[in-house]
Amino acid sequence: MGATATRRRGRRTAGSGSSRLADYRHLTNTLVPQPAFSEDQVAAIHATALRVLEELGIRVLNAEARRLYAAAGAAVDEASLMVRLDRGLVTELLAKAPGEFDLEGRTPERRVHMGGKSLAFCCVGGPPHIADLDRGKRNGTLEDTRNIIRLSQHFDVLHLQSPNVEPQDTPLNVRHLWVTEAQLTQAEKPVFVFSRGTAQVRDCHEMLRLGYGLSEEEFRAKPYCYTVINTNSPRQLDVPMCQGIIDGAEAGQCSVITPFTLAGAMAPVTVAGALVLQHAEALAGIALAQIVRPGAPVVYGSFTSNVDMKSGAPAFGTPEYVKGAFGAGQLARHIGLPWRGSAATASNAPDEQSVYETLMSAWGALLGGVNLMLHAAGWLEGGLTASYEKFMLDIEMLQLLAETLQPLPCDEPDLAWDALAEVQPGGHFFGAAHTMERYQSAFYTPLLSDWRNYGAWAEDGGKTAVQRANALWKKTLAEFEPPKLDEGRAEAVADFIARRTREGGALPAS
Amino acid sequence: MGATATRRRGRRTAGSGSSRLADYRHLTNTLVPQPAFSEDQVAAIHATALRVLEELGIRVLNAEARRLYAAAGAAVDEASLMVRLDRGLVTELLAKAPGEFDLEGRTPERRVHMGGKSLAFCCVGGPPHIADLDRGKRNGTLEDTRNIIRLSQHFDVLHLQSPNVEPQDTPLNVRHLWVTEAQLTQAEKPVFVFSRGTAQVRDCHEMLRLGYGLSEEEFRAKPYCYTVINTNSPRQLDVPMCQGIIDGAEAGQCSVITPFTLAGAMAPVTVAGALVLQHAEALAGIALAQIVRPGAPVVYGSFTSNVDMKSGAPAFGTPEYVKGAFGAGQLARHIGLPWRGSAATASNAPDEQSVYETLMSAWGALLGGVNLMLHAAGWLEGGLTASYEKFMLDIEMLQLLAETLQPLPCDEPDLAWDALAEVQPGGHFFGAAHTMERYQSAFYTPLLSDWRNYGAWAEDGGKTAVQRANALWKKTLAEFEPPKLDEGRAEAVADFIARRTREGGALPAS
Repeated sequence: MGATATRRRGRRTAGSGSSRLADYRHLTNTLVPQPAFSEDQVAAIHATALRVLEELGIRVLNAEARRLYAAAGAAVDEASLMVRLDRGLVTELLAKAPGEFDLEGRTPERRVHMGGKSLAFCCVGGPPHIADLDRGKRNGTLEDTRNIIRLSQHFDVLHLQSPNVEPQDTPLNVRHLWVTEAQLTQAEKPVFVFSRGTAQVRDCHEMLRLGYGLSEEEFRAKPYCYTVINTNSPRQLDVPMCQGIIDGAEAGQCSVITPFTLAGAMAPVTVAGALVLQHAEALAGIALAQIVRPGAPVVYGSFTSNVDMKSGAPAFGTPEYVKGAFGAGQLARHIGLPWRGSAATASNAPDEQSVYETLMSAWGALLGGVNLMLHAAGWLEGGLTASYEKFMLDIEMLQLLAETLQPLPCDEPDLAWDALAEVQPGGHFFGAAHTMERYQSAFYTPLLSDWRNYGAWAEDGGKTAVQRANALWKKTLAEFEPPKLDEGRAEAVADFIARRTREGGALPAS
Repeated sequence: MGATATRRRGRRTAGSGSSRLADYRHLTNTLVPQPAFSEDQVAAIHATALRVLEELGIRVLNAEARRLYAAAGAAVDEASLMVRLDRGLVTELLAKAPGEFDLEGRTPERRVHMGGKSLAFCCVGGPPHIADLDRGKRNGTLEDTRNIIRLSQHFDVLHLQSPNVEPQDTPLNVRHLWVTEAQLTQAEKPVFVFSRGTAQVRDCHEMLRLGYGLSEEEFRAKPYCYTVINTNSPRQLDVPMCQGIIDGAEAGQCSVITPFTLAGAMAPVTVAGALVLQHAEALAGIALAQIVRPGAPVVYGSFTSNVDMKSGAPAFGTPEYVKGAFGAGQLARHIGLPWRGSAATASNAPDEQSVYETLMSAWGALLGGVNLMLHAAGWLEGGLTASYEKFMLDIEMLQLLAETLQPLPCDEPDLAWDALAEVQPGGHFFGAAHTMERYQSAFYTPLLSDWRNYGAWAEDGGKTAVQRANALWKKTLAEFEPPKLDEGRAEAVADFIARRTREGGALPAS
């Protein structure tokens, strides 16, 4: 099994709070995937999705995308904006997408492998609001954006950056510049770029190129950033999303193509039916990327959940969500692409519900064989709010999961025969040689969990986990030091922002 | 797959709060088991455990047990109280233990299958204290015992009764009578009997026989109750525990033989080493049961976790705990016996930590292939306290897990082709015929989770899950009606208690 070797090769992981030697920066999903469906059923979902694209088609609001689809051989009806792709064309384009690739960070150590058994976590993306126990829920600010980027940089168990909170105090025309600046100056993990029109995307790519000191050719040769493309289910691709696929693929950057298929609302009420729709929409997006640039790095995204059928409210971490994740993972393996899942909750507070829904989601994704788990720290309220305390609770859970994926040593010395012979009946192993040699790194040391007895805990204020999380995010931010960015590059980025600001920046496309 | 058929056969499950048709009373663990070890490693752990019993031996404090071991062929040293069992003897005795059996409830509908792919949940057992948000932590009372039995009876997702809280207001000599009375009058699920000496065990068995209207022969022919046997790790079986195995096996009742092996404290610091000790001790107990009565129903129990190496405090739901559960499940399958795991936490409050530790434990057990999950509702503070609110949080989590185990329908109509063709791009599926036919039972309806939007939730008091749990356990108890016990049998039980009380009852053995 090589378990001992792996353990010895490990390095102390920054930010974990643990004395364990596990390497959180390079995780492997060692779990045996759980199937939701038989192989025949997976093939039937795939075939039905192909039939959806061929017979029903998808409405494409972006004229350039329709032109590209048509040039590749799709049937395009300009009156209805409907694009129909026959199964042969989809299959042919799908074959061009790479099954595995690397996403580059600022340093080689932050390179993230996508696909195979590799596993990457990323914190919450996209919420307009931010919340903490002291100040409650409020609009996100640029300082909050920076703070979440700092927390995300600090913990090695997070691998990619994310558009973590919308800085509503920053004007729309320059917001993308400042969000990218924060990612470049506060962190060194692979960067996220919103698909909000070509002008913004080009700005972000250019900043990344300047920040990393790359030539245009070098930048276009490897993916350094990723974007998330959400379809407008059912069966619709809007203008900026199409444009995002096109812009990303042209620049050789990564697109995570994720239909948001809520069973019973924007998707069929059956999970199998919702997965058919998810699969069809994802295939349409992946096909567009491959038309633009054969071999463009893409991730098969899924976000299938269900709604409360009484109110229509979306739900996450439900049994249907978990099984949908098992099935989505099977579909990703069926087409041989890296798979993106999520850890999510509908809870409005960083409470017990938020924890069990998030952890159910996370287990669903892990057991589905996930490669990229988005929203895995700090997500609250169905994605409308980022929470500082929830972020810390989630980091603890991600570390528990990352440690669970480490091999369990079972070589001869691990069987502990000598220790078992040494310690007499009714005795204890605290002082055994076998224990002394291993105790410092034998177990995961928690970040947030309090294992003290009731008396010691109560005397110390009887704080619950969310209250301890409040203290911990503040301490982490107070001690944070950004990874140093080369001065010349930092200046180039600053100059670019100044120039683009003078030029009026770029408003998001819609 | 027969998914649709299974769904249609389902019945509305009492207490779930859901409109789903899943049958919580008869659960199947449909997950693919996760291995912690290779087959060779499992065989090595088994072989090392046999070597422990053969060469090092186990200290047996009970004279009758030593006599029984000796008569069966073990090497017994009366000076040191050490019993050594050679591997041939252990293997031979192990072969007599049934791989699967039924545990009887008061009605056939409450029969619980042990072994194979069957899955049963049981609430917290054994805590001296009880806690709720209104009254805080305090000593358990008989009313609390009854209340937890009532809650346990109410929810179909719980299958067995448990010794849920120690009624410290009830004298020790009659406590066992009243705990058994509560189980017989408030519930109808298989009963728990503490192994606290032959006199108490006989009283409990007799009450069960009277309560169920069975002849002595009928009672001894099938297991109607179970006991939990904890070894005194390392390598020691105390007087009442041995007696419990003997008394249980003689009466044909079920023993769950569970070493409590805390890696780094009472067991080797490696999980593999702790599992060697767990396995050796469990095999010694199982062997004793089979000596007493070949074919006696036993469950292979495991409770391997780790401690905080700084303080020695026990921890639960840790990565080591989860992987230990994967490994323990492999060992149970290796010897072909039903496997008992647990859902546990070290948290002192029904907070976020308590939820993630419990849910990590539960996933560990489920993925280990667990048949019987004890302590799965209401456990807090390393087992020292039962919590009413934690009970409700756990029920929600168990229902989420039980639903996750239900098959995901994927027949032709589930693929939803007609609905996909009916709903136009950008539309919604709320009114589709496919949705209308299924919406009432399509999804699990939560017991406790609040999916409303932030505004509606905040206006309604902004209650967190634990606060909602507080209201829910009170409502459940207020509405509880005990399942009617035949009057003649109830009278026989009452007469027995009166007589035994007059006779002085029976003090626990030690």
